Amino acid sequence: MRSAKVAIVGFGTIGTGVARLLLENGTRIARHTGRPLELVRIVDTDLTRPRDVVVAEGLLTDDLSKVLDDPEITAVVQVIGGLEPARTIMLKLLESGKDVVTANKALLAEHGPELFDRARQLGRSIAFEAAVAGGIPIIAAISECLTANQIESIYAILNGTSNFILTEMEEQGSDYAATVAEAQRRGYAEADPTMDVDGSDAAQKLAILAHLAFGAQVNWREIPRVGIDTVDPTDMRYAREFGYGVKLLAVANLVPEGLELHVSPTLVCHGTPLADVRGAYNAIRVKGDAVGRVFFQGLGAGQMPTASAVVADLIDTVVGRMAITFRTLDLWSDQREAPVALRDPAKVPGRFYLRFRVDDRPGVLAEIAGLLGQQQISIASVIQHETEPENGGIVPLVIMTHWASEGAMTKALAVIDRLPCVHSGSIRMRVRD
Amino acid sequence: MRSAKVAIVGFGTIGTGVARLLLENGTRIARHTGRPLELVRIVDTDLTRPRDVVVAEGLLTDDLSKVLDDPEITAVVQVIGGLEPARTIMLKLLESGKDVVTANKALLAEHGPELFDRARQLGRSIAFEAAVAGGIPIIAAISECLTANQIESIYAILNGTSNFILTEMEEQGSDYAATVAEAQRRGYAEADPTMDVDGSDAAQKLAILAHLAFGAQVNWREIPRVGIDTVDPTDMRYAREFGYGVKLLAVANLVPEGLELHVSPTLVCHGTPLADVRGAYNAIRVKGDAVGRVFFQGLGAGQMPTASAVVADLIDTVVGRMAITFRTLDLWSDQREAPVALRDPAKVPGRFYLRFRVDDRPGVLAEIAGLLGQQQISIASVIQHETEPENGGIVPLVIMTHWASEGAMTKALAVIDRLPCVHSGSIRMRVRD
Repeated sequence: MRSAKVAIVGFGTIGTGVARLLLENGTRIARHTGRPLELVRIVDTDLTRPRDVVVAEGLLTDDLSKVLDDPEITAVVQVIGGLEPARTIMLKLLESGKDVVTANKALLAEHGPELFDRARQLGRSIAFEAAVAGGIPIIAAISECLTANQIESIYAILNGTSNFILTEMEEQGSDYAATVAEAQRRGYAEADPTMDVDGSDAAQKLAILAHLAFGAQVNWREIPRVGIDTVDPTDMRYAREFGYGVKLLAVANLVPEGLELHVSPTLVCHGTPLADVRGAYNAIRVKGDAVGRVFFQGLGAGQMPTASAVVADLIDTVVGRMAITFRTLDLWSDQREAPVALRDPAKVPGRFYLRFRVDDRPGVLAEIAGLLGQQQISIASVIQHETEPENGGIVPLVIMTHWASEGAMTKALAVIDRLPCVHSGSIRMRVRD
Repeated sequence: MRSAKVAIVGFGTIGTGVARLLLENGTRIARHTGRPLELVRIVDTDLTRPRDVVVAEGLLTDDLSKVLDDPEITAVVQVIGGLEPARTIMLKLLESGKDVVTANKALLAEHGPELFDRARQLGRSIAFEAAVAGGIPIIAAISECLTANQIESIYAILNGTSNFILTEMEEQGSDYAATVAEAQRRGYAEADPTMDVDGSDAAQKLAILAHLAFGAQVNWREIPRVGIDTVDPTDMRYAREFGYGVKLLAVANLVPEGLELHVSPTLVCHGTPLADVRGAYNAIRVKGDAVGRVFFQGLGAGQMPTASAVVADLIDTVVGRMAITFRTLDLWSDQREAPVALRDPAKVPGRFYLRFRVDDRPGVLAEIAGLLGQQQISIASVIQHETEPENGGIVPLVIMTHWASEGAMTKALAVIDRLPCVHSGSIRMRVRD
């Protein structure tokens, strides 16, 4: 049977993984595709760097036109990071008649509407299973398998680097900076891990999931997000005393008032699946009105898990399933019904974990409790250990609140943080039961 | 846009759930399908039983020919339980040109080859996401999303009734018979729960998964299976002392010697996702050579979770994705490459949990350890509590072994069980680390 000719643009870590699967597992893939996938071109500006796969002479080129101008290549894996030239190259690929598979969530979160509109005009498809949660098939799950449901909520761990760091801090009791350094040494964090640890990466992925599940059209920068750099091993210990672990949770929750979206370090109750997600794993808990809660866990990044998702998309594209999915999903389209409204972040309710550094004297708790009460925030429990005070007689005061709105909590903390008995470094985290 | 006309055959619990989704959520489904799904017929022999959905006058009929003879109906949800008349009706539906969606795993496990061959001859498709693990999209995951992988193993909790009973026994400390009665009272177990608790239901689902993941063509009756009726709350307590919970695990494990398949109550290490699956939930851990471990959890049965999977399949069928999937998967076909060989069950290795009821006197452990040693089975740990002996001076002796083959274990136990100091009621369970 005639082979399907495919190409890879971007021969970095992911591109190498995709090439390995295509070149080393051709028989297996042909079985699932009904015909062989023939990798006929790899494009990269770097022709000499050693890579973890052997490719035939002449396959690798730095000339993109060898792909663009070859009408026999109908599907292209485009795995270039960043926004440019990734965006321009994707447009060129679509315009030259190629269906595209990508793993670049930043590109989709930033330029999704433009790229998807162009693909639609041209009758092409863009597949992006690998863009969110790596090897976990969450894009297919939400956009194909759970389509009979109104999705009600998504609670997810979408950044493996952050989860690795939080797990290490919890298990080793080490502080944030030391753990980041260790994660970098072991390859779990990049040299500049900012986008991972400040919640941006998770917010980009959440924006994509929220679009798929709820039709929300939201710029990821509008999603309130708090990073993990404020989390202290002290908070891990207190959380454990209350029966919780700390996770960087990305949340999309549909309520009558609109869609709540936020990314922040959150106390997650031990014994629930999300609390037990360790190391570099990602996980997503989706709740649908018919199916109930469905939970997915797997590696969210890394060469081969990501390549696994990319090649599955490539197979879907070549057999023709992706064209149908792309057409019926109609993503980032102006033609869709009015998108769901986002709920005012200040009104999003929750329970909160608070840690203050306070003077070690009577009356401090009463003062803080009074100020919380003025915002209608009541206290569920308090931990005030008999601890060795820090220099200057400062001790920790830990409070778990009952339900309160984000806005009320912000107002209360603004006042509390100005009290003479409260020192800098207050910590606030959401609590998920 | 022109609607797609669909029908339901079998108006029981699942059929009612499917009708509810189609009738009450038409707008949502039309959005995912690109056009409305119009439910034009429901067929059942019982026209009068009250059901949990309001259907228009004339929709419900006991005359199957109203579906068979209507060329406008192209896709039919067939949710009749059991083997006959389910098999005959499915053949008639296929022969009259309908694509079929089913939730009947017993039918597929028994008559898969016949039904799929007939569908292929006729150019029709059979979709069956709901047949395994209800609302968890595991069929799509294995047959579409993980196709770039060689699946290496599947460890799964596939029977919600058994898991509910085991969870209750573990949490309440109640015995098997009382828990089954409670599960029946609460609707988690049928009046005759035999197929659920003896491992048959899980074996049928495992046979389907093993075919999808490994191409294995195995009659489910050939899968060695042990039910949960031998599990005692005593064993739950000992398992916990060793750091394990007890789950009815369905296992498919590909090793160089072939495919290991079995269903049995198994000690699963606490802190791993499978050990924490509680109540009526199902869960599947799939390991692929590229993606690593991916874990899925959700409700494996029940009206709406099952209906969620059925309607997703119906959408897939109507939009044309299922035709492609069905064609490329080529399931239960004689044309496929030689199926993977099953490994001789006697040679499948594992660690084992053993509980004996023995005379309370010195030398018994030495005698049993000696007989295990004769089969090259060594002991990892032993629990012999200072307990109040049962009537007649009988005490429990609990042993965890190192790795041994099933066959060696069977031989050793045959001899041990004949010892005068060992009384009836020995328990053997596999251990999963």
